[in-house]
Amino acid sequence: MNILITAGGTSEKIDQVRSITNHSTGRLGKNIAEVLLQHPSVTIDYVTTPVAIKPNSSEKIHFHFIESTQDLFETLKELCTSKTYDGIIHSMAVSDFTPSFSLTEEQLVKSIAQTPLTPRFLSQWLQENEVDPIKDEKISSDTQHLFITLKKTPKIISYLRKWQPKAKIIGFKLLVDVSKIHLLEVAQKSLKKNQVDYIFANDLSQIEGQNHHGFLLAADGIIKEAQTKKEIANLLTSVIIEPSFE
Amino acid sequence: MNILITAGGTSEKIDQVRSITNHSTGRLGKNIAEVLLQHPSVTIDYVTTPVAIKPNSSEKIHFHFIESTQDLFETLKELCTSKTYDGIIHSMAVSDFTPSFSLTEEQLVKSIAQTPLTPRFLSQWLQENEVDPIKDEKISSDTQHLFITLKKTPKIISYLRKWQPKAKIIGFKLLVDVSKIHLLEVAQKSLKKNQVDYIFANDLSQIEGQNHHGFLLAADGIIKEAQTKKEIANLLTSVIIEPSFE
Repeated sequence: MNILITAGGTSEKIDQVRSITNHSTGRLGKNIAEVLLQHPSVTIDYVTTPVAIKPNSSEKIHFHFIESTQDLFETLKELCTSKTYDGIIHSMAVSDFTPSFSLTEEQLVKSIAQTPLTPRFLSQWLQENEVDPIKDEKISSDTQHLFITLKKTPKIISYLRKWQPKAKIIGFKLLVDVSKIHLLEVAQKSLKKNQVDYIFANDLSQIEGQNHHGFLLAADGIIKEAQTKKEIANLLTSVIIEPSFE
Repeated sequence: MNILITAGGTSEKIDQVRSITNHSTGRLGKNIAEVLLQHPSVTIDYVTTPVAIKPNSSEKIHFHFIESTQDLFETLKELCTSKTYDGIIHSMAVSDFTPSFSLTEEQLVKSIAQTPLTPRFLSQWLQENEVDPIKDEKISSDTQHLFITLKKTPKIISYLRKWQPKAKIIGFKLLVDVSKIHLLEVAQKSLKKNQVDYIFANDLSQIEGQNHHGFLLAADGIIKEAQTKKEIANLLTSVIIEPSFE
C-alpha cells in the first residue's frame, strides 16, 4: 500500500538570510506515519522540511526534503506522476504567499514620488516592481521600514485529485480561534472545491503539544472528532487502511 | 568565568501561523560552547531558540529560550543587569525588522482610494496603519497580494557594552557575497559604533556545513582568519579565555 504524507511547514525566501515560515513542528505527521507503519503492507513517501520533527528512518519510509511551496509542488508532481498512491495525507502547512518584491523606505519613496500609488495604478505598480528571482542578496538593514509585497502561491491541494484520480486524499484546514460551525463550513468548502475525500479541520487555539482537537469531515458528510495527535493518527490510518469509514 | 552566548536565529510573528525567520542553524554557537566548556572554570548562559541546534546539556550550561528580537532584548537585559560576564559572544542572527502591519490587496486598495500614497503622506499612513499587537489572528489568504510593512528593531549589539562595561564582547557581522575589503570595513564600523572588543566578519557565500570562512577583527586592528566552525570556536575561545590576543 503506497502512502504519501506531507508534514511540517514551508518557508519562502525573502532574501538569502530571511524567510517567511509557516509554523508546523511536523509532530502530527510523525504520529500519523508511525501508526500507518504498524501495518505491514504500508510504504510511505514522506515529504517534509529539514527542520521538521521526523518519524524514525526505516526501509519502509522514504524521505523527500523541500523548503518552499514551489519545491513542494515540483516534488509532489514528480512523485504523483511516476507512482500510484492508495492514500495521500497532506498535513503540511503550506505558505499561501511568496515574496514578490521588497522595497526599503527610500525605494518606496522614490517609487511613489514619480507616480502616487492609487487603486488604478496598483496593478501596474505590482508588475513594474516584481523581480524574479529577488532572492540573491541580503536586503539592506539601513532603512527604517521595509515593505514586502507577497503574491499568492498555487494551492497545492487543488492538484492532488488531478494527479491521483483514485487515491484516498485527506487534506487539512487550520483556522485560528473560530467557531466550530465556521470551521466546519470552511472545511466543507475546501473538501468540495478540491475534490478530496476528507478534510481534517482544526483550530490552532485547540492545539498544544500532544493535545490536538479537530474534526475529520468525510465527503459523505460524516464527521468524526479527535482530541490528541495520537487519536488523529489512528483515525486517519483507519480511513486510509480500512475499506469503510463507518 | 561567566560567559554569555547567543546563537540561532530570531523569528518575528506576522500572525499566529506565520513568521519571518532569520536563518541560522545554531551550529556555530554549539561549536563555540563545546570548546569553551573544555575549560574547567567556564560556565555559560546560552540564549537560543527552540529550533536551533544546541550544545549538550550539562550543569555548566544554562539554556534560555527566546523567539523574537524583543524576547532576546528582554532576556539579555535581565541576564546582564543581574550578573557580571567575563565574555559575551553574540552570534545570534537577529531580525533587523519586525512586522508593523499587514494589508490584503483589498485593504490596501481601500486605504489608497481615500488618500493616494505619496512621499508626503507616507509617515502619516505608517502611523495610521500600525497596529499593536497585530499578531492575534491568521491573515486571510483570500487575496491575490499581501503587503507587509516592517519596522526596524532595536540593535541588540548596541546595548551590550552599556550593560556590561567590563566584559570582553564579540559581535558578528554577516554579509552576502561581498568583497573582503567591504566586509572588513563594515565590520570595523560595527566594532567602533557598538564599542565591542571584536567582530567576527563572515560572508554567507563562504559558509557551508562545517566550512565557515571569516575574519576576527580586534579593536586594536589585528585580524585573524578562520576556515571552519571548529577554528572559529578555538579562536573565540582563545581571545575570551587568554589574557592577550597576540
